[in-house]
Amino acid sequence: MKRSERLVDMTKYLMERPHDLIPLPFFAKRYGAAKSSISEDLAILKHTLADNQDGILETVAGAAGGVRYVPFWGKKHAQHYLQDLATRIEDPERILAGGFVYLSDILGNPQDLEKIGKLIATRYAYADIDVVMTIETKGISLAQAVARYLNVPFIIARKRSKVTEGATVSVNYISSSLDRVSKMELPTRVLKENSNVLLVDDFMMAGGTLTGMQQLVREFNSNIAGVCVLCEADFEDEKLIEGHLSLVKIKRVDGKKKVILAEPGTLIAHTDFNRF
Amino acid sequence: MKRSERLVDMTKYLMERPHDLIPLPFFAKRYGAAKSSISEDLAILKHTLADNQDGILETVAGAAGGVRYVPFWGKKHAQHYLQDLATRIEDPERILAGGFVYLSDILGNPQDLEKIGKLIATRYAYADIDVVMTIETKGISLAQAVARYLNVPFIIARKRSKVTEGATVSVNYISSSLDRVSKMELPTRVLKENSNVLLVDDFMMAGGTLTGMQQLVREFNSNIAGVCVLCEADFEDEKLIEGHLSLVKIKRVDGKKKVILAEPGTLIAHTDFNRF
Repeated sequence: MKRSERLVDMTKYLMERPHDLIPLPFFAKRYGAAKSSISEDLAILKHTLADNQDGILETVAGAAGGVRYVPFWGKKHAQHYLQDLATRIEDPERILAGGFVYLSDILGNPQDLEKIGKLIATRYAYADIDVVMTIETKGISLAQAVARYLNVPFIIARKRSKVTEGATVSVNYISSSLDRVSKMELPTRVLKENSNVLLVDDFMMAGGTLTGMQQLVREFNSNIAGVCVLCEADFEDEKLIEGHLSLVKIKRVDGKKKVILAEPGTLIAHTDFNRF
Repeated sequence: MKRSERLVDMTKYLMERPHDLIPLPFFAKRYGAAKSSISEDLAILKHTLADNQDGILETVAGAAGGVRYVPFWGKKHAQHYLQDLATRIEDPERILAGGFVYLSDILGNPQDLEKIGKLIATRYAYADIDVVMTIETKGISLAQAVARYLNVPFIIARKRSKVTEGATVSVNYISSSLDRVSKMELPTRVLKENSNVLLVDDFMMAGGTLTGMQQLVREFNSNIAGVCVLCEADFEDEKLIEGHLSLVKIKRVDGKKKVILAEPGTLIAHTDFNRF
């Protein structure tokens, strides 16, 4: 196979398997090419990704070595996208009762989900994440998008028992805006002990739901490796949680005046982009 | 930019935008290359994808023309994956009460979701789909995976009212195993009139839930463009729905004897793979 064909196939193959370590002999065999040619191909791939600030190709030396594609977005891409997203969120048509914001179009748009997923996966690209966790329903697409780029499984806490999942562990938590105590649960078989869990959710008011998820993770003797939300309500004074990151901060929601103010959140300032 | 670099970037760019028509002048400008060079690049990309039976590159001639990447999987890949999936589903540990089958690991695994999404998107690659629809909770990851490869939005019917979605339309339906009447609803703003909707779900017993979704789509004066489920219970005699496709058929679930039998479903026989 020619270099040009190898590069097309290699790019596709690696992009479909983020974070997987692929041994060089695998490519050498797949293309019937010398290892030195494969190394040259990978060098082209690496610098093309780096030039676009859109992905890192890591080469691991030695007998157990190989090559790994790490989805990683440059700071300028991140800033540009979050600024655009915040502006789109400022549409007053999004205002719903109770200070909530309509986000289902964004959370159901593959192009947004890819960018959001890539961005959160960039932040945690070099963290040790075994699994992404969220709670039904609207966090699910976010969890899936992040899990895809980290190439780890994702799991979903449920708000009520379902017969189709077997035994569960449950915790109580204070749900949205501190007004009531609810219950969330996770099937016992979905999470192993000592897992490193990245929590994600679509919208955070005071953080009660995330606190519930943290508690649930602890019940499984596992660790919180990070907490990241798409939007956080910055106007909510009483926060039940610390150390979380957000893609967008909602500064104000005024249903009467039809005003919603949003800006990029804390994620970018807490991401080390110097990896290219 | 050299051909080798262009090919890496072009492959990545097109893969990130399935079904989008990209005008050739866009690439010519992006790479500072002649249109004839871009055409040669695209020819390499096209035959490399075709050789692997993993994707179609369509060129559209004329002033409004360009190039489009269509995720499309060859029949052999499809057969191989579905046979493997059916075998994995035959694990007796998956048997749950009521003839249900534990599938959350598959529905939360990015590698499975990519293959499942690509397979369903192959079947509907040349159908006119505006939106993918499912019902919470477990169908969501499936809908997202399919929507990603068709590059259309996906929407989620809910089982109960949520304050965060505004006005809704609701219908009643006969839920799992015909034992009770439930309600499902969809926010009015998520679906436009005259949309072509592809329905997907994780597990079908008699099909009551899918019937409810069909009814809901009709309430929005929209059309059902297809119905596809991950697993259908072949042992369930009374079917409320016709013309649906399945990736896997569950032939038997016996909790006492710890036996579960599965085989590839009807999707492959109803897919035209002669497109490469």
